[in-house]
Formats: sequence, C-alpha cells, structure tokens
Amino acid sequence: MKTNRDEYTAYNMWLQRGRRPDLPHFDVEGPDTCYFALRECLEGLERLNGTCKPAGSANAGVKLNIDKTLPPEGYRIDGGTQVVTINGADTNGLLYGVFAFLSELGRGGSYNQLSLSSAPAVSRRVINHWDNMTGAVERGYSGKSLFYRDNAFSYNPERIKDYARFLASVGINQLSINNVNVTAVSARLITEDLLPEVSKLAAIFRPYGIRLIISIDFESPKSLGRLETADPLDPSVERYWREAAELVYRHVPDLAGFLVKADSEFRGGPASIGRTQADGANVIARALAPFGGTVYWRCFVYNCTQDWRDTVTDRPKAAFENFYPLDGKFEDNVILQIKNGPSDFQVHEPNSPLFGRMNHTAQASEFQVTQEYTGQQIDLYGLAVQWQEFFDAPVSKDRITRELVGKEITAITAVGSAGDDENWTGGLLAQANLYAFGRLAWDPSLSARQLTEEWIGLTFGPDEALNPLTEMILASRGVYEKYNAPLGIGWMVNPGNHYGPSVDGYEYMKWGTYHRADTVAIGVDRTDKGTNLTAQYDPWVGAVYNSKETCPEGLLLFFHRLPYDYRLRSGKTLIQHIYDTHFEGAEDVEGFIETWDTLRPSLPEAAYQSVRNRLTLQLANAREWRDVVNTYFYRKTGIKDEKGRLIH
Amino acid sequence: MKTNRDEYTAYNMWLQRGRRPDLPHFDVEGPDTCYFALRECLEGLERLNGTCKPAGSANAGVKLNIDKTLPPEGYRIDGGTQVVTINGADTNGLLYGVFAFLSELGRGGSYNQLSLSSAPAVSRRVINHWDNMTGAVERGYSGKSLFYRDNAFSYNPERIKDYARFLASVGINQLSINNVNVTAVSARLITEDLLPEVSKLAAIFRPYGIRLIISIDFESPKSLGRLETADPLDPSVERYWREAAELVYRHVPDLAGFLVKADSEFRGGPASIGRTQADGANVIARALAPFGGTVYWRCFVYNCTQDWRDTVTDRPKAAFENFYPLDGKFEDNVILQIKNGPSDFQVHEPNSPLFGRMNHTAQASEFQVTQEYTGQQIDLYGLAVQWQEFFDAPVSKDRITRELVGKEITAITAVGSAGDDENWTGGLLAQANLYAFGRLAWDPSLSARQLTEEWIGLTFGPDEALNPLTEMILASRGVYEKYNAPLGIGWMVNPGNHYGPSVDGYEYMKWGTYHRADTVAIGVDRTDKGTNLTAQYDPWVGAVYNSKETCPEGLLLFFHRLPYDYRLRSGKTLIQHIYDTHFEGAEDVEGFIETWDTLRPSLPEAAYQSVRNRLTLQLANAREWRDVVNTYFYRKTGIKDEKGRLIH
Repeated sequence: MKTNRDEYTAYNMWLQRGRRPDLPHFDVEGPDTCYFALRECLEGLERLNGTCKPAGSANAGVKLNIDKTLPPEGYRIDGGTQVVTINGADTNGLLYGVFAFLSELGRGGSYNQLSLSSAPAVSRRVINHWDNMTGAVERGYSGKSLFYRDNAFSYNPERIKDYARFLASVGINQLSINNVNVTAVSARLITEDLLPEVSKLAAIFRPYGIRLIISIDFESPKSLGRLETADPLDPSVERYWREAAELVYRHVPDLAGFLVKADSEFRGGPASIGRTQADGANVIARALAPFGGTVYWRCFVYNCTQDWRDTVTDRPKAAFENFYPLDGKFEDNVILQIKNGPSDFQVHEPNSPLFGRMNHTAQASEFQVTQEYTGQQIDLYGLAVQWQEFFDAPVSKDRITRELVGKEITAITAVGSAGDDENWTGGLLAQANLYAFGRLAWDPSLSARQLTEEWIGLTFGPDEALNPLTEMILASRGVYEKYNAPLGIGWMVNPGNHYGPSVDGYEYMKWGTYHRADTVAIGVDRTDKGTNLTAQYDPWVGAVYNSKETCPEGLLLFFHRLPYDYRLRSGKTLIQHIYDTHFEGAEDVEGFIETWDTLRPSLPEAAYQSVRNRLTLQLANAREWRDVVNTYFYRKTGIKDEKGRLIH
Repeated sequence: MKTNRDEYTAYNMWLQRGRRPDLPHFDVEGPDTCYFALRECLEGLERLNGTCKPAGSANAGVKLNIDKTLPPEGYRIDGGTQVVTINGADTNGLLYGVFAFLSELGRGGSYNQLSLSSAPAVSRRVINHWDNMTGAVERGYSGKSLFYRDNAFSYNPERIKDYARFLASVGINQLSINNVNVTAVSARLITEDLLPEVSKLAAIFRPYGIRLIISIDFESPKSLGRLETADPLDPSVERYWREAAELVYRHVPDLAGFLVKADSEFRGGPASIGRTQADGANVIARALAPFGGTVYWRCFVYNCTQDWRDTVTDRPKAAFENFYPLDGKFEDNVILQIKNGPSDFQVHEPNSPLFGRMNHTAQASEFQVTQEYTGQQIDLYGLAVQWQEFFDAPVSKDRITRELVGKEITAITAVGSAGDDENWTGGLLAQANLYAFGRLAWDPSLSARQLTEEWIGLTFGPDEALNPLTEMILASRGVYEKYNAPLGIGWMVNPGNHYGPSVDGYEYMKWGTYHRADTVAIGVDRTDKGTNLTAQYDPWVGAVYNSKETCPEGLLLFFHRLPYDYRLRSGKTLIQHIYDTHFEGAEDVEGFIETWDTLRPSLPEAAYQSVRNRLTLQLANAREWRDVVNTYFYRKTGIKDEKGRLIH
C-alpha cells in the first residue's frame, strides 16, 4: 500500500493526512443525535484520502447507529463492500468506533472485511495536566502549557480541539486541567472568577467525550472561604465544600471531579490537623456526590523532610502505611490515585503494595506519560513496555494486576506529556507513549508491540521497512535502564531537573531516596531483615521479593542490599554487571542511531532529522551516565573492569 | 568607661550613638573648603555624646587643617587638652583623620593624649557590588540591592549617604555599582538613558571621597553601538569606546573607571575573537585615559565547560596561563584584578601565582567580603584572618605579598556584602568583615586581632567582658575550615547555592573543580609530577608547595594527591584527620554558642538574639557537614574512626 509521505507533519501525530489515497469516497450517514461522530468520521475519511471529494461521488457508505445493548462506551463495527456499519453504545462509543474504523483504514486495513468490537476496561481514562497558570508545565518537556499564559487562560481553541480529537481517538475521556501543586491563582479555578473560563474549555472537550477535572487545594476553605480551618470534620468546612461544588457544577455540569494532592510535599492536608486521609477525601466527596463528581485523592503521601541519617523510615512504605488502614473508610465516589510504584515514576520499581490489597476502596493507577525520570522526551523510552510490566505483576499467587482493572482499579490515569511544541510532545517518538497510554487505559491487555506497531503504522504509514523502529522502541526502556541507576535502585539523577547522572545527588538530602553505597555493598535492605517493605505485599508476592533468589533481577537493588561481588544469575558479579550494562547501554544508543539512519528512506525527512537530533543528545547523555556511574563505583570499590575498558 | 548600650541599633554598625556620654562638648572649626569633614566631625562627636549640645557650651575644640606635606589622603592628629588638630593632606585625608579621631574616642581613647598619623597603602580601595538592576544581588546574603529595583535605580538617598559614611569611615574610596555579569539592562549604564541616574548616585558618594566604577560589557560595541564586531583592534570599536568614555565622563567627571569581566563564564571577550586580553583591556583603557579613568580587568578567565574526564586541564592554572605572558603589554591605566587565590574564594587557597610574578603590570587583589563559600553570613567567619594569610604568603624567598602593596598591587578590592537588610550584612557579626576589609585596604599590616577588637569596641563599646568575642571571631575561620572540605581541597558544596555539603556536587560537572577521591586516595596532583601548577610560582615558593613535607598543611590537598593513610605532621592519618576535624568543627560551634550565651549581659539584647539565631543555624550546618563528609569518606574508604564515634 502506498501512503503519501509528503503530507506528513509532526503536528498531526497519529492522525496523518493522505495515508490512504486509494480509498473510495464514502458517504456517511446516521441519526442527528450522532452528528458529531458523523462529522468526525467524514473528516477522518477525507483526511485519509488526502482530499475532500465532491458530494454525490460516493461509491461506499458508512452508517452510524446507536446500539444500547453494547456495554457503555463500547462499539461494534460490521464491515461490508457497500456499507460499513459502526454501532456505538452511546455517543462516546460511536466516536470510539469511528476512530477505530479510521485507525484500521489508516494502517492499511480493508473496510469490507472489517469486524471489530470493543469496550473500555475502565470507565475513567484520564490525563492529568501539571500545567501551571503561569504557562509553565511542571515536569513538562514539550514547551509551554496548552491552556494558560501569565496566570490566565490563553489558548487557541482550534488547537485545543485538535488535542481533544487526539485524546478521544485513543479513548481518553477525562482530563485534569491544572497542576496538582495548586497555586494561589489556580486555587481560584473553583471560584466565580475563573469558572466561566473553565466552562468554555469544557465546551471544547465535551463533544469529544472528555470531561474535565480540576485540581483543588485542600486548604481552600481557609484561603478562599475565609474560614479559620480546613478541618474536614468542621461543619463550616463541610458547608464550604458543598457550596463550592454547587457553584462549580452550575458552570460545568459534567465536571468529572476534583483531583487532590494533600499532605504531600509541603501541601496542606488532613494529617496536618490530626485528621485521616479518609476524613479529608470524604468531606469533599460528599459535596460532589449529588452531581456525580469523583474525588481523585492522591496517595503520594510521605515524609519529604527525612533526615538521611534515619535508616528506619523508608519512603516506599509510606503510601501503604497511610492508606491501607483506611480501606473501606472512603465514600464511594472517592478514588485513591496511586502511583504505579512505591517510589516515584522511576525506571524500574515494583508495583505499589496497595494494588491488590485494598479490596474495599476504588483505586486509580497513576502513570507518567511525561518522561520525568525516563529521558525527558530527549532519550527514547517506550513506556508501554514498563506499563505492561505493571499490569503483568502478580498481586497474589493466582492474580496479576491486570485482573484488578475494572474491579478495584476503576480509573487509569497518567500525567500527560503534551505542550505547545509544534509536535505536542517535544521528542517526536514520545508521541508513541501518549498514544499507547490512551490505548492501554482502554484495553490493558494490548501488548507493547501491538501498540508500537499501531502508532508507527498510523504515523509513518504501514511499511515493513520500519519494522526495526518497532524493535528500537520496544528495546528502548531496557537500553535506558542499562545506562541508568542499576537494578531498580533508582534516583541517581541530578536533583531538581531529574535528568543526567548524579549518583550521590539525592544521597544526603531530605527526600527519602538513598542507595547507601559504601566500599563493599549497595542498597537498602527492604526485606524482613531490613525495613520490611516486603511485608506490605500479599504474602506470596512479598516472599518472592524477600528472597534474593526469587526477586526479579531488575528489582534486586530495590529490595536488597548486596555486596559488589554478589553473583547475579548471569554468573557476573554485581560490580561487573554495573560496568557491563553501562558500556552496553551507550553502545546500544549508538546502535539506535545506526538503525535510525537506515530508516531514513522510509521516513519523512523532517521526522528523520528531528529524531536524529534527539538521538545525538541521548548518546551524549548515555555516555555521561556510563562514565559517571562506572567512575563512581570504580572509585568507591577499587574493583577493576574485567574487560579492562576505560573507566575514568 | 560606661557606654550607652540602650542606643544600640544594628543599622548603625560601627558608628553607634551614645558610646561616650562622658565626652565634653567640642567646637569644630576649619577652613570653608573642609566644610564636609567639619560637619561629619561635629555630627560624629554628637553621635558619640548621644546628644546635640547647645552652641556656646563648648569646653574643647577640634581644628581641621589641610597640610599638603602629608602623603595623599593621609592625616595626622595632634591631641591636646583644649584643642585637637586634625591635619589632612586633602579633603579625603581630612575626612579619614576625622573618622580616625572619632574611632579613637569611640573605643574609649582620650583626645588630649592623641597622636596619630596614617596614610593609605594604596590609592584605590574598592568595593565591588554584584547588584543586578532587578534588585537581586548575585551572591548576596543581606537582602536586596541598595541601589536598584525592577530594572531601574531605586533607593533612599539617606540610606545611601549612611552607607557612604560607613565606607569612608574605614577608608574605602571607590565603589562599582553593578554586577560584573552585566545584563542587557545594566549595559546601558554607560548610555544617555541611565547616566543621569549614575550621576545622581555619584553625587551622594562624592563628598565621602568615594568615586564610582561601572561594570561594562565587552560586547557593548555590538549590543549598544550597533557595530558588527567588538574586536578591540577594529577602528570602529576604538571609536565606540572613545565616544562612550566621552559621554560617561560628561555625566560623571570623576568616575574611577570601568570594571570588566570578559572571556569568563559565558561572557564575551577578546579571546572569543582571537585577540589577547591585553588587546581587549587596552582599547578601553585608551578611551578612559584622557579622563583619568582606570580599567579594572578581571583575570577570572578559565574553561568553565571542562569535561570532568579531562585530567590535563587544571582550572587553577588558567589565570596565570592567560595573563602572565602578557606582562608589560597593558596600558598604564589597566589594573589586572586578580582573585586572591587561583580557584574561587574558597576557604583555603594558596595565593594566585600571578602575584609577585607580574612586575610590569598594575594589579588589584580581589577578595570577597560577601561570604559565598564562607558561610553566607549565617556561619560565623572572620575573614580578616584569611586576608592576612594572603598578605603574609611569600612570593619569593625574600618577599611576602604584603610588600607588593603600593608597588605591583595598586588597588585592593573586594566583592561587597551590604544589602538592604536593616543591619546591612544579614549576619550581624558579618559587619566585622566589611569593617576589616576597608581598614586592611588602607593598611594591610593591621592584625586580624586589632581589626576585630576595633570593630567590637566601636560596635558594642569597649568592654573587657567581650574579649571572648574577639577570640571567637579570630577562631571562626579555623572552625569553619574544620567542618568543611579538608586541607585546601575546596568545593565540596551544593552546586548552585554554594552552601551546605555535597562532596561529589561538583565532581562530575563542567566547572573544573575536582577532588577525584577514590577508595585509596584523594586530591589532584598539582606538583611537577602532576599538572605542575607549582611551576607557575616563583621557584622558591613553588618548591615549598611542590613537596608534601614543606607544603603548608592547610594546602596539602590543594597541591597533592594523598592516600588516606598518609601521616600528617600531627602523626594522624589523613582519614583520621578528616574525621577528627569534622567532629571538632561541630563541637567548636557548640562552644561558640556557649560563649555567646555568656556574653549576653554585655550585649544589646537584639544583637544577642540576632546572632544567637544565626549560630543555631550554623550548628545545624556544621553537623550536616560533619556527617556528610565523614559518612562520604567512611563509605568510600571503609576505614573506621579510631575513636569509634558515630559515623552514619
């Protein structure tokens, strides 16, 4: 199949123009209530054709239809030579059916053989924006905010509409619009000042089936409500939240809810006034309940002013300690939003021990599409591999995390990666992660390979010559891991910007992130001989982690303190493994560049150049990591590389 | 002698009110041309008395007199029961004589026995302000700028006058008004836009004998003059500087000159266009010469993007490499402004090798009153001890640095420490450093003890109970050194803010500051077996540094790479010395607090509390340094503390 590569622009991400110039001209028809899906279908087909054909020239048809027997938001597509029928459970389902249809065509599929049906695994598929109203995006690597400038709303509605379309096309249906670190300005998003603006933004997202979420400040009863306290048990505070909810829903009747970062990293919360996390979440939840709103209550609660000399406190234990005892104490419309791992979006972590152990509380798994610790959209890092690792991880002898989805896990969320860079995600290949997240939130059983192939097919056209790119993206997480902090120990990054190596950067700081490497050993013992984090897991899972012999090797230094001469399963010593992987990681990036160069004939030149530039930066970063980490451990251990390579 | 402690305010620094209520009422007379000195004398006497006595109640007299036989700016005071005569070589000399007289009285001296004469060691005694026009002060620890806010001049003229008085009272006679890192805004200080404002500020400082200096941007011919180049050999550039100088001197006829940071830390300069530092300095110098202006050309030129893997480049060698070959090539009105040491204001450095080796070029020694690496006006650090170490250091077998003063060294400069904090210097005891710098620039033979006693006497009154404070200030540099980076190795600070410990903070960065500690040894070999920095010194001096046996022990790790089991002169191993000094340093700070508490009855309560708060912060800092440094080296060496103390 021939695609029109000349029409490629990075802006269009996975909805490129001219992918199927061979398509017939379709007529699209359906009930008036489905007008929006109908229009998106027509536009999508014209986009694929690369042209807008004159009316009356149709030689095939698409029929849209609401079929209420389908599961919520689900769709079923029945192909045919003359007419393709897209059935949706509701307007969202219809829209998702349309995008599924367009995706099939975009990747070279034929419409007449098509038979597809699907429904989402969870009803809440959420992107969190960490956008500040100043226009800066916290941990954003793609330019400025899409929504704000200079402490006010400021956007191009057409661009927002395009963004909404991208998100809908991969199944996202909720979006939080402001940073969880709420400022004095963004706290006012729930007040009369800014709600009219929130309402306008919601109106752009609404037709795409996307409902907004507002991040709120737990201290609002004081800062905005002029109360003496934010105590959730105080009747005036209860009243404050009720009135705030009434006001908010008057402006945005379909708001999905509030997102709350409380008692976390210097933010106020219930613990600071002697109340539980449940007390804090529930008072807000009761206020939102009449309007169908949800409280997303983040579990990222830990002591961020730990003394590094304190070896008893163990940060990865904090979320479980704070929330597990409260299982069942939350209102039904509270969802505990739990980062995938117990640390903080590191390259390799075990799952949070809360997953699988809280059976009476709704949970959201929180991922990070924005690549804070994973290459910042400079270094190539296909996140789908890591996310699938999350879903595959056992929560007990008989059950894996994926089986919680749609049961305990009622929402799948991620910190977004889109900013106002022309290509949305800074690094072009980082588009694949935004794509994969949406698709996985819809269906966590999709393989990383399939998602990667889909994205490549849609973005660059179905072309077997690009198969090496699939392999490159699938390999990229492993490569990044090789040149970074070894075996799950994490954190060896420059404080502040979180990019580039600094082995001791966080070692003597207050953030609870220590490797405690000395001249003979490295790591924090989190087994039953140490901080006993392993006991927070289901006994079977905990036992796996607790033993050096059964612990997945990628997590060995997460759970165990080991001497440098410890023999890994490969037969290598730990120190030799560190040296080898770091040399290999940088070599692998050289290999990426070679591979990428061979793909040049199959790629739009602008895309080739753009990624080539990032890969060059990645190579410098990989070499810096290699040399800093190897030198650090060589200087610390005095143990030479067996292969005699250059360690500085 | 009884002083009136109730009148103490930190704002008044060493010119406190009510120090001598016992003084008679003086009449002050002198020629009209000396009106300003006369008024300062009268006001000063009234300040000491604590009252303004009615005219006609005089019972003693002060006579001011110009005596042109005295050396420039010098004075001679002849005491007497009825009349004290203050002779000045010129109006500056008279003013300095007045302040010397007031200082004697303020510290309890009697006027009738007085016989004093003095003249400055150098004619340029300079404070450099690193004030940005935004109002922020680079490396400032005392609030905001005294001169600027929001990219414009903004000050209280009365406060500036008070500042000028403080500076004049210790002999400062030049002041640069803006950061050497010149911005687009401050570059315009030499244009018609801002010169009227410079002129107004100069008018406040002028009566106090203080001439202004402007920090300029070497790239101004391009940025302001709209030329294609800033090439100093280009005639249009020569013309640009000539016209700029004419304009500047039309507004400020007594401007002392320009200060230039070129080819340094990402700033433009002659090297970037293939010219020498002499080419660069001379073109500006020729422009200033007709107006008697000086170019202060900083020698802080080094590679700030060094690869840490590069062990050949050695930053401390850079200034010598760049400037020594140009000795004698500079115009007469160029002064090379050389930081005291070859690194950057660290706690313990050798002197710059340029001192004593450039015999045909005028030099300024540059110190730092603002405590960037020396405690940031939180930790007590009496800088006079360190400055005297500088002057005492040999430049050859027969000559010490102090002997260059007034010969090769024609200016003594320092980065200032004053900001808009009520007490001017943030930490109250940091006032002592500003005092000591001015006095030392006047007379580098003054001992640190004498300067400290003078400052205490003037500030808190002459009180033997305060003698322990003298000892505390004199000991403070040694104490700080104990708990910081050991034996002259420097730099183990947090990158960016330069406070608090981070042993590897700069180790893998681009700034050329490495300790290269591994499991057996630490340090950079700068001897003839290593980078050969020692060869930049006079052969006799170089030989002293080159040998571990003769190198001053405080500089041992500056010049030598040593194993941890190296025996110091004390008989201790290097590692044990590190442990011992770090434990001692923190204990010594506890001792400071005990001492300070015993002084409470002799101190104004506000002063007691203010310093007490800083000492508490210092103790936390000292303990953090102790633990981080000791843990770092324990983890790296595996060698236990002989005394079995707690190392984390």
